[in-house]
Amino acid sequence: MDKQVIANRIQKDMELFEPFSQTPCHGITRLPFTIEVRKCVDVLSNRMERAGLTVREDAAGNLYGRLEGSEPNLPALVIGSHFDSVKSGGNFDGMAGIVVGIEVARMLRDSGVVLRNPIEIMGTHDEEGMRFGTGFFGTKAMMGEIDDDYLRRLKDSDGVSLRDAMICYGLSPDKIKDAARDYQKEIAAFIEVHIEQGPVLEDAQKQLGLVTGIVGMQRYLVTVTGRPDHAGTTPMDLRIDAMACASKVISQMTGWAKEAGGEGTVATVGFVQVAPNAVNIIPQEVVFSVDVRSKEECCIDQIVGSLRAELEAVCGEKGATFKIDEKLKVAPASLDEKLLAMLEKGCGDLGLSYMRMPSGAGHDSLQTAPKIDTAMVFVPSKDGRSHCPVEWTEYSDLANAAHLVYETLVSNYR
Amino acid sequence: MDKQVIANRIQKDMELFEPFSQTPCHGITRLPFTIEVRKCVDVLSNRMERAGLTVREDAAGNLYGRLEGSEPNLPALVIGSHFDSVKSGGNFDGMAGIVVGIEVARMLRDSGVVLRNPIEIMGTHDEEGMRFGTGFFGTKAMMGEIDDDYLRRLKDSDGVSLRDAMICYGLSPDKIKDAARDYQKEIAAFIEVHIEQGPVLEDAQKQLGLVTGIVGMQRYLVTVTGRPDHAGTTPMDLRIDAMACASKVISQMTGWAKEAGGEGTVATVGFVQVAPNAVNIIPQEVVFSVDVRSKEECCIDQIVGSLRAELEAVCGEKGATFKIDEKLKVAPASLDEKLLAMLEKGCGDLGLSYMRMPSGAGHDSLQTAPKIDTAMVFVPSKDGRSHCPVEWTEYSDLANAAHLVYETLVSNYR
Repeated sequence: MDKQVIANRIQKDMELFEPFSQTPCHGITRLPFTIEVRKCVDVLSNRMERAGLTVREDAAGNLYGRLEGSEPNLPALVIGSHFDSVKSGGNFDGMAGIVVGIEVARMLRDSGVVLRNPIEIMGTHDEEGMRFGTGFFGTKAMMGEIDDDYLRRLKDSDGVSLRDAMICYGLSPDKIKDAARDYQKEIAAFIEVHIEQGPVLEDAQKQLGLVTGIVGMQRYLVTVTGRPDHAGTTPMDLRIDAMACASKVISQMTGWAKEAGGEGTVATVGFVQVAPNAVNIIPQEVVFSVDVRSKEECCIDQIVGSLRAELEAVCGEKGATFKIDEKLKVAPASLDEKLLAMLEKGCGDLGLSYMRMPSGAGHDSLQTAPKIDTAMVFVPSKDGRSHCPVEWTEYSDLANAAHLVYETLVSNYR
Repeated sequence: MDKQVIANRIQKDMELFEPFSQTPCHGITRLPFTIEVRKCVDVLSNRMERAGLTVREDAAGNLYGRLEGSEPNLPALVIGSHFDSVKSGGNFDGMAGIVVGIEVARMLRDSGVVLRNPIEIMGTHDEEGMRFGTGFFGTKAMMGEIDDDYLRRLKDSDGVSLRDAMICYGLSPDKIKDAARDYQKEIAAFIEVHIEQGPVLEDAQKQLGLVTGIVGMQRYLVTVTGRPDHAGTTPMDLRIDAMACASKVISQMTGWAKEAGGEGTVATVGFVQVAPNAVNIIPQEVVFSVDVRSKEECCIDQIVGSLRAELEAVCGEKGATFKIDEKLKVAPASLDEKLLAMLEKGCGDLGLSYMRMPSGAGHDSLQTAPKIDTAMVFVPSKDGRSHCPVEWTEYSDLANAAHLVYETLVSNYR
């Protein structure tokens, strides 16, 4: 295997996807069920076919490229990652894992090795949850966890339901259950290659990260309601100012996260919407998101408890009201030790430096890990930056990941 | 004068303007230089003409309806208020004063009284400053204070300049200086009737308020800039979270206003915009408005001083940066004692209960008062509510104001 050839092929593929963004000069914005995702999937499909894979799109819009194995009826080794993005993110988050998967298929084709099991390169849809406020749609559909109620209930900021978005995108929501796999029979392993999105590997000067587990996550949308009065004629002590209340709560989030301690514990208010949002009207309503993660669920619960108590205290004092909508609740997940050991041996055989590490970000693997043997490989992120236009990962590092997955498959499944 | 007839005519006129809103089911939103304002001005023009006035629109989009007096070359008595609104406000803020002015013209016509001076009923444009972040555009243009630089510099949230907005609206920005009046020769007095927008008159059970002065006002737009990182993989102590910084500052605004003391001292953060505003990205930028008012300028300066010091402390600690753009700075204004005495005598003659009071809101009168003899009459607001859809003032109270202005003009200018 010539590593330069592999890196060049990966680079060429990666660059094909850069144009598919709603924000061309401000990074990648590829929200689910949009024309940008459709164009991206068309090109992915083309790359998969040219790598010798048989391509199909499932009822959730996930894309599969399959290569049959030598033994009929063995379950597939699925190499998957997502093709949607956050708003104004980078070109590597998600896509890198699919492109590495396609490269593994090309390496198998070039070397003439036929595995016993089939392999499937999978592009998953709506992992980020950027449009409907909750993520992992594609993998959840694959696991059979999406029903019609879910499709009708979730709406984007324009009020479009997930169901209607699917129809506009060209899918049939009534067939969503067709996306469910009989995973116990059909899938032997789920392997996800992803950029680290943090500074740990770069700091430790390791070429790859082998993920031991993924933090749990809880997401809430908090609405604080006050009264919209004139900003000039309403004395300070007669106001019910939703922003004054919300800001008191938001300003304490960092402190609560530090207090809670625990590995990988973080809390973020990333979204804030004020109504009527006018310079001279006292805010009537503030809606804000709360995203809390930790490897220890009790730390998450403690932060959410502080949030609830402080909302009660602050709103109670001012006469405002509040509600807390749960948007996402995922327990921390452990990955498969057997696969991890195979990858570890692969790193040794190939002379790649690596470290075991937890993941601070949620991934499709978080959905599959409880029911399918799952492994994750992290590739270093430059300066630890991600979810922003300067996100960057070296193509030679992605080539290392492709090499590792190829080697691991060939050593264990031939 | 039959007060019921006057109240009915005012009600009929007021109801004509209710449909001109961008937010039909959520109160009145009539932003300057929009189709809603254009429709409103067309109807105003019609009502003025039917009241026997000669109508013209000036280069700033202000509307004048003029009735000549018996003596040529005397300066005019201008009765003015604004026709633009805040976002999701009520139907009375601004419009009530113009409609009362038109009713005064009708009362003069019906009674056959001809004043020595001409009167002009004036509808002013963009008093609220809701679209371009700064107000009093129409009166400033009348006072000759708007130049081409001003028109090019101010932009709305879509990036449209005031200059371009004027062109779209059908005005010629190059002619803005034509809107300037030679006020020393042309204008004898500026009289503004306005709803109180606060609870004072209702509490005191007075029919009218005669305004002694208007609070000063300072408006700023603050931008806090941090770094947009992944909300899951960036440890709490490595973040530069613009929202964490901004919320610390915003949450203290109420306390600073109470500390400063002074009559009519208030501080409001009504507008907040977060970028990229996504659930799982640490906020890179938060822009928020600060609106501070007081009858005592030193109280305003103290609050703005606290804001600046806290921004420096909080951003300095976290490694964020900030800038403060001044959007508006108006000193407190005193109104004309001679006109005030005339109105006071008018209330006595008509048996109307009244009180002298300051104004906590900025008004067009704030712009004219330093250079033109100016008076203001307040009409009670139900529950003190304003800048919201439930804003309400009794038509019989507006009729009292019309009666007072009519009586004052006839007693002093016949």
